[in-house]
Amino acid sequence: MSYFKHHVFICCNQRAEGEACCANFGTPELLGKMKDKVKALGLAGEGQVRINKAGCLGRCDDGPVMVVYPEETWYSFVDEEDLDEIVAEHLLNGRVVERLKI
Amino acid sequence: MSYFKHHVFICCNQRAEGEACCANFGTPELLGKMKDKVKALGLAGEGQVRINKAGCLGRCDDGPVMVVYPEETWYSFVDEEDLDEIVAEHLLNGRVVERLKI
Repeated sequence: MSYFKHHVFICCNQRAEGEACCANFGTPELLGKMKDKVKALGLAGEGQVRINKAGCLGRCDDGPVMVVYPEETWYSFVDEEDLDEIVAEHLLNGRVVERLKI
Repeated sequence: MSYFKHHVFICCNQRAEGEACCANFGTPELLGKMKDKVKALGLAGEGQVRINKAGCLGRCDDGPVMVVYPEETWYSFVDEEDLDEIVAEHLLNGRVVERLKI
């Protein structure tokens, strides 16, 4: 059994001013919001969901990005609505959000 | 096909002074060394291996820890020798290092 059913890594990499990076899109704040949403649904913790901060995930052209393991689903997202959909569909019901998938 | 064959996340979380955390074991430096090793072997990049910095992975009692996805293998490691073994066995040859597995 997986230690976490869904282990989400969100790129929070901040590059020097002027350089493109996920953090320029506010990912550190969005990460905090996603953590709160998962916690509020009682989904956080061992055997369930973990939302994790990550350094550069190496897919900057598609940023901001996250990856959900072990199923290995990559998403590009822009705002809280996208996060809501990923939480409600993928994390709660195991359905991939095709419109955000990369 | 996986975007990365082996996606390694190393906890580099630094807590306030006195609190237990992976960074106290020098994980940020070990991460850099592991990146260098993987690069030197020509294993880094899309379709191959990525070594990623991560925030707290939630397994502090076993720290310092890393997780390799999508196969989801968790390791506890202490020094460069452990990293060498993980690189040579797991990342290069796909064999889990049982003595370090948690």
